[in-house]
Parts: sequence; structure tokens; C-alpha cells
Amino acid sequence: MIDFWFSIGSTYTFLSVMRLAKVERDSGVAFRWRPFSVRQIMVEQNNIPFRTKPVKMAYMWRDIERRAAMYGLSARLPAPYPLPQWDVANRVAVLASAQGWVGDYARATFRRWFEDGLEPGSEPNLSASIEECGQDPRDVVSLAAGEEIGDVYEAATAEARALGVFGSPTFAVGNELFWGDDRLDDAITWYRRGSLAS
Amino acid sequence: MIDFWFSIGSTYTFLSVMRLAKVERDSGVAFRWRPFSVRQIMVEQNNIPFRTKPVKMAYMWRDIERRAAMYGLSARLPAPYPLPQWDVANRVAVLASAQGWVGDYARATFRRWFEDGLEPGSEPNLSASIEECGQDPRDVVSLAAGEEIGDVYEAATAEARALGVFGSPTFAVGNELFWGDDRLDDAITWYRRGSLAS
Repeated sequence: MIDFWFSIGSTYTFLSVMRLAKVERDSGVAFRWRPFSVRQIMVEQNNIPFRTKPVKMAYMWRDIERRAAMYGLSARLPAPYPLPQWDVANRVAVLASAQGWVGDYARATFRRWFEDGLEPGSEPNLSASIEECGQDPRDVVSLAAGEEIGDVYEAATAEARALGVFGSPTFAVGNELFWGDDRLDDAITWYRRGSLAS
Repeated sequence: MIDFWFSIGSTYTFLSVMRLAKVERDSGVAFRWRPFSVRQIMVEQNNIPFRTKPVKMAYMWRDIERRAAMYGLSARLPAPYPLPQWDVANRVAVLASAQGWVGDYARATFRRWFEDGLEPGSEPNLSASIEECGQDPRDVVSLAAGEEIGDVYEAATAEARALGVFGSPTFAVGNELFWGDDRLDDAITWYRRGSLAS
């Protein structure tokens, strides 16, 4: 089992969220979806990868566009960024994780974000993505906003911080971290043989 | 021909510099070594990837260690960082590029940096790496410090900036940029068929 630490709101996380089911089928390796607040950790670490860096940001969208095509994913870019309701989107993911529908929810909300330009955590993406998972949006949004889910979200973020996670997506094989969609293969290799050396 | 934009002083550039000759042999694709000042561009863009971010920096060294093993490269990490004489090291690369020995020089100085812990652009790395290329250190260092090489270095950096290069290494296929050692395969694929889609 590899832990897949992710935040909705991270752009490169789109690639991992959308291809992870296929990766699991092809590799036979299982992943555990671990939503957390990468933003909280990035603010603590003064890590602002794109917002203040227009040249790097333009590259990021182009890189994601090319790699989405590589994975057979459709995307209309640039998607809205940064998200105004990042925490709402991730609190729902925390609840969905506890209830067993987090993968479906993550795919639904990222698809609306990257294909339709609709922001996760905001309407109409929020309710439509929850409904697509067969859940009641009013109940889910209310529960996700509550103290109990807030505590789980905080605890997950604290666990990620303690592991040394600083970005999303991060793949954790025990204490060994692999940051970025482009390190997914490395994580699987490490999981299988504890080394990347051939 | 793919342009390999690189700066001595960038840590991940170690991986590309040390494996590029093998990549050229295996792929049949030729690369043109293009030294430039990534630092100048990063300062302009307020892009400080590691120096002020200890958690991300620790990950960077671990990631390089694992990937060096993957490529069969030896490295004693962390290597000294950041470099005090970055510009000296890159000015010599600019001269070496004009004279046809840039690949040998880059490999020699990165090897001393990552295997022996000796900083590029400073003694004893500087003279030893130049001598290893069959050149006279006194003549080379003097020429590299001169106005003519300074102008070429500035012009190369201006060309990189105009292309949209913001980091090292960057592989350029025409105007299409691929940033990072981990995008080398993407650059080769793009060079061959103008797309990453399969």
C-alpha cells in the first residue's frame, strides 16, 4: 500500500488523481487516498510555487497540457487558479475518505475543474460532484463543515507535516517520500524493491 | 538537435550533465550545451526553490540521491550549496563551449562537486577540472573573466530569458521547453514527433 497524499487545489495533482485507478490496475499496487491541506504547510514554509511567478506558471500549464495528452486526459487550460474554496473541497474529500467514496469525488471535482473550468469547493462543481457520487450535497457539505471533520483534516495535515510532506501530490512508501506526479513510477519501484538502482 | 540550457550550481543539473552522453548514444539525438546564468533569471523572478526552505531542500537531496543511484551515478550528498563562485564556473563553461570542450568540463566540475565535495568555480575544483580537459587553468580563468566572455554569457542568458527559461536544466525543442532532468524523456519524445500523446 502506498499513501497518496493530495490536496484539491494543486494543479499537478490533476494528473495523478485522474490516472491513479489505471496505475493501480496496471501495477497491481494499491494506493490509499490521503487528503490534507498542502496549502497550510506551504504557507508555513513560505513556499509559493506559481502565484507570484508568471513565467513559471505559464510553463506549468503547458507542461500539464502536454502530460495530460500523454496520459489520454482531456483538459481545457489554464483552469481557474488559485481556488477560493480550497478548504471546502478538501474537507469534503476528508469526509468522502472516511465514507469510502473519495476517489470518485476527487475525479469528479477535478474533471469539472480541468474540463469545464468550474472551481472545486464552489457551486456548481461542489454539489454536482457530490451528487455524482450518489451522496446528498446538503448533508455532505454540512458534515464537512463541522468540527469533527475539521479535526480529522487537521490531524491528516499534521501527519503529512511530520512525515516531511511539503507538496501535492506526494507518494509515501513508509517514510520514503516521492513528490510530484512525475515521481509516481519511482514510488512504485521503491515499493517493490526498496531502491531505484537497477 | 535539442538545446540543453544549464547552469553549474543547479543541483538537479548534476543528473543531466552526468548522463547526457549516454542519453545521446542511446537515443541518437544530439544535444547542444548552452551554459547561462539561471541565477540571474531566478533572482529577477524571486524564485528561491531551496535556500529558504529546509524541508524541501532535504527532500531535494534525497531525491537526487535516489535518482543518481537509478542512473548509476555516484554522489556524496549533500554537496556544498549554494555555490559562492557560480559565475566563475559558468563563465568557464561559456568559454569551453566556444572552444568545444564544454561537456568534458561540466562533467569534470560536477563530479568534483558531487563526489568530492569541492565547489565548482573555486579552487581546487576550478583548476583541476580545466586541466582535466587539457587546458591551461591560468589562461582559461583569465579569458573567462574578460569582457568578451562576459558579453557571451549575458547574451546566452538573454536568449534563455526570451525563450521563457526559468530553471536549470531546461531542454528546448524549438520554442517548446522541458524543465528538469525528469523531463528529458519528454523532450526527446517531442523532438521525434511534436507531441507526447501516444
